[in-house]
Amino acid sequence: MSGEPTGEERTGGGRGDGAGPARGGGADADLVISGCTALLHDPDGSIRFAEDAGIVVRDGRVAAVTSAAAVAGVSAAERIDGRGRLAMPGLINCHTHSPMVIFRGIAEDVPLDEWFNDWIWPMESRLTERDVRLGALLACAEMIRCGVTTFADHYFAMDEVAAAVVESGLRADLGWAYFSSQGPAARERSLDFALRLRGAADGRITTSLAPHAPYTVDEADLAETARLAREHGLPVHLHAAENREQTENSLARYGVTPIEMLRRCGLLDVDVLIAHGTGILPGDVPALRGGAGRTAVATAPKGYLKFGWGTTPVKELTAAGVAVGLATDGAASNNSLDVWESMTLTALAQKSALRDPRWLTARQALDLATRHSARALGLDDRVGALRPGMRADLILVDLTGPHVLPVHDPAATLVFSARAGDVDTTIVDGRVLMRERRLLTLDVPAVAAELAERLPRLTERGHGDRLQEYRG
Amino acid sequence: MSGEPTGEERTGGGRGDGAGPARGGGADADLVISGCTALLHDPDGSIRFAEDAGIVVRDGRVAAVTSAAAVAGVSAAERIDGRGRLAMPGLINCHTHSPMVIFRGIAEDVPLDEWFNDWIWPMESRLTERDVRLGALLACAEMIRCGVTTFADHYFAMDEVAAAVVESGLRADLGWAYFSSQGPAARERSLDFALRLRGAADGRITTSLAPHAPYTVDEADLAETARLAREHGLPVHLHAAENREQTENSLARYGVTPIEMLRRCGLLDVDVLIAHGTGILPGDVPALRGGAGRTAVATAPKGYLKFGWGTTPVKELTAAGVAVGLATDGAASNNSLDVWESMTLTALAQKSALRDPRWLTARQALDLATRHSARALGLDDRVGALRPGMRADLILVDLTGPHVLPVHDPAATLVFSARAGDVDTTIVDGRVLMRERRLLTLDVPAVAAELAERLPRLTERGHGDRLQEYRG
Repeated sequence: MSGEPTGEERTGGGRGDGAGPARGGGADADLVISGCTALLHDPDGSIRFAEDAGIVVRDGRVAAVTSAAAVAGVSAAERIDGRGRLAMPGLINCHTHSPMVIFRGIAEDVPLDEWFNDWIWPMESRLTERDVRLGALLACAEMIRCGVTTFADHYFAMDEVAAAVVESGLRADLGWAYFSSQGPAARERSLDFALRLRGAADGRITTSLAPHAPYTVDEADLAETARLAREHGLPVHLHAAENREQTENSLARYGVTPIEMLRRCGLLDVDVLIAHGTGILPGDVPALRGGAGRTAVATAPKGYLKFGWGTTPVKELTAAGVAVGLATDGAASNNSLDVWESMTLTALAQKSALRDPRWLTARQALDLATRHSARALGLDDRVGALRPGMRADLILVDLTGPHVLPVHDPAATLVFSARAGDVDTTIVDGRVLMRERRLLTLDVPAVAAELAERLPRLTERGHGDRLQEYRG
Repeated sequence: MSGEPTGEERTGGGRGDGAGPARGGGADADLVISGCTALLHDPDGSIRFAEDAGIVVRDGRVAAVTSAAAVAGVSAAERIDGRGRLAMPGLINCHTHSPMVIFRGIAEDVPLDEWFNDWIWPMESRLTERDVRLGALLACAEMIRCGVTTFADHYFAMDEVAAAVVESGLRADLGWAYFSSQGPAARERSLDFALRLRGAADGRITTSLAPHAPYTVDEADLAETARLAREHGLPVHLHAAENREQTENSLARYGVTPIEMLRRCGLLDVDVLIAHGTGILPGDVPALRGGAGRTAVATAPKGYLKFGWGTTPVKELTAAGVAVGLATDGAASNNSLDVWESMTLTALAQKSALRDPRWLTARQALDLATRHSARALGLDDRVGALRPGMRADLILVDLTGPHVLPVHDPAATLVFSARAGDVDTTIVDGRVLMRERRLLTLDVPAVAAELAERLPRLTERGHGDRLQEYRG
């Protein structure tokens, strides 16, 4: 703990409405949180904790981060007593396939080729738009309860996911996935969606082009995607170098690694978000460092452990200036959309992989969860830190449970003792989506009941159809 | 799901009071749970799930496991509506140092030698009996909320831990730790405690002799411990082969591995519980298989990941018939006493270490959490399965959260999607210790407040004292 916030956070400013602390008569603030511990970033990016803080929210933005005493007289439409809780930026899920919660836990204990060919792609061949909507709604409910305020989704029927974003109140970057096997119309649909939905849901939706992966999208389509991204100012979100085997297969087939393939197609010269990257080789790092665009890698460590892979080379990537965001992948492989768990597992998997207890520390894990993840999605101008002018995307974490006490260092407490279930309140754009663990925007029993009726058809695999064939 | 329970569970029997289903007038049962899914073991030990089950508890034991319909007419002092919940044997923490929750999160991101020499042993040199009591109470609260019903504790001032067991209502196997550096009196104290407390708390307390480890207890003391264990019919609980470095140091110093040292001292011919064992070599397995006593290894995977060690060779050990129990170690290294997390991490760490997605499966993880863990503590005659005649140590897990839906296979749901916070109800000896997440036996705020006052003295390390020196 480092005591009271500095003056720096007491004043408004930054981009946006220039809101200062709101005081005096009338409802000057939409929301005031007082008495919490607050996770703050110093100007150099390092994380510190302020005790007995006060947070003022107005017009969907953080208007002030100050002391509890300073907000005592602020009139607000809504007040939250933050005592015993810690306020921090909402978690960001940098890579998921939210509707795949439908298949959570059905395809277990198998390698990736069986997972795709015998389970997921046969089942996905029967998905309808309504299934996607229901899956996305269930996923949004799960994420709100996990403290996720933003997610990057890469799937099909993405208008349905966008509708779930609108209904849930979450923030999301959405990309409509495509394979080369689907022909050019699928690539066009991805572009059309990205252009139509960009800025939707009061600005909470951003969009990306979403080729599936270098092993399912050919070189010409990848190059065309890069051209479209440049032409339309869109980022690209795709899978690449998911595991070492894919890298070896790419070298055998094309003579280049998947990352080198991306470079050759121009995808490292646009803003690109690469999912997984456990197959990234040391020789790939210069290309990742040298691109003209924003280059980011999303790491979802639970699935890598489950599949028996290595993990993302986070140390080499961050040293090269690549943003490394935390992610869950879809729940069909990860079994949850719990970014909190991803944060803990990233620290554990990194220490284990490098055989080094000093890397990655709790503070470094929190840095990935906040600054890095926001930068990975190109949203660091609006989320990822509690600072005046930023969008009010934040969560409150209960620090009174016996499993987190005593709190010697909130960083260690958050990363190694707290769990997603300790998230008490989730706020996006200043709107409370969950308060004291109660969801305020979504009806889980109704969604679950409708989904349950559809499961027998969705999980039937005897029809012999398959969306695609995996030969990573 | 495999439908209704078979007739086998419908009747009473087994050891104990031979209680059958209680029906008709008068309060024939102390507790009835109806409508839950139940995790049951087939006679061959395999796990299956019965839907819409009914559980009858009388005189602290499971009297019947049957259908909800069959318990509808049973009169009971207390009823729990189990719909939407899963009943399973309470989790067993096979190795911890419960009072060390005091030091949770204070000694982070350091290797084991610094962890012991610069942090833990200096701080432990100032512990008082009251500190130990408060730590144990906080730990018991945490464990009840994690669904733990039994824990094996290895620490100092163990009368204080026993008092916390009495107050909390938990079950525990307790051992008073000793080093050779403390002289023979410490060994005698461990024996005295084990004899005095054996069978206390209405039989909920069992005891063990608790030499610290082969690197802190010399060969003569280990041999004398084995002799005392045989003489008094006591099990032995100790650390050994915690990591590969300890094994290598043992080979360099003594010419034998830590496991071979235990064998040489006679400790594999008594009932022995070995903590960690990540340094067990393939050549150690025959000795572990061949002992005359019950040989068990407790695995606490989170700490191994944190320290950058390998993990326990669970596959080789279970193939050799060694019971492998799940554990958390102390919260000073593990940051939680969350055995649920240990279950998930054991599956993940095993798949990762063996680079094999097929080992260890969700069902195998549940087998470790139930049958294996009970056998590791020699308590498989009374806990670890929901079966008539067993002590009524069980938990209810909420299966209605969006993060666990839909449930295609409860085994995958429990191991890879559910979390400790989903444990809704914790029952030991038929007594409800937590109901709908509310602790019924312990006052966490009072314990935490008293502990907070004592922390500045406990965490001060400038005094230069140290309980012991680590040179594993």
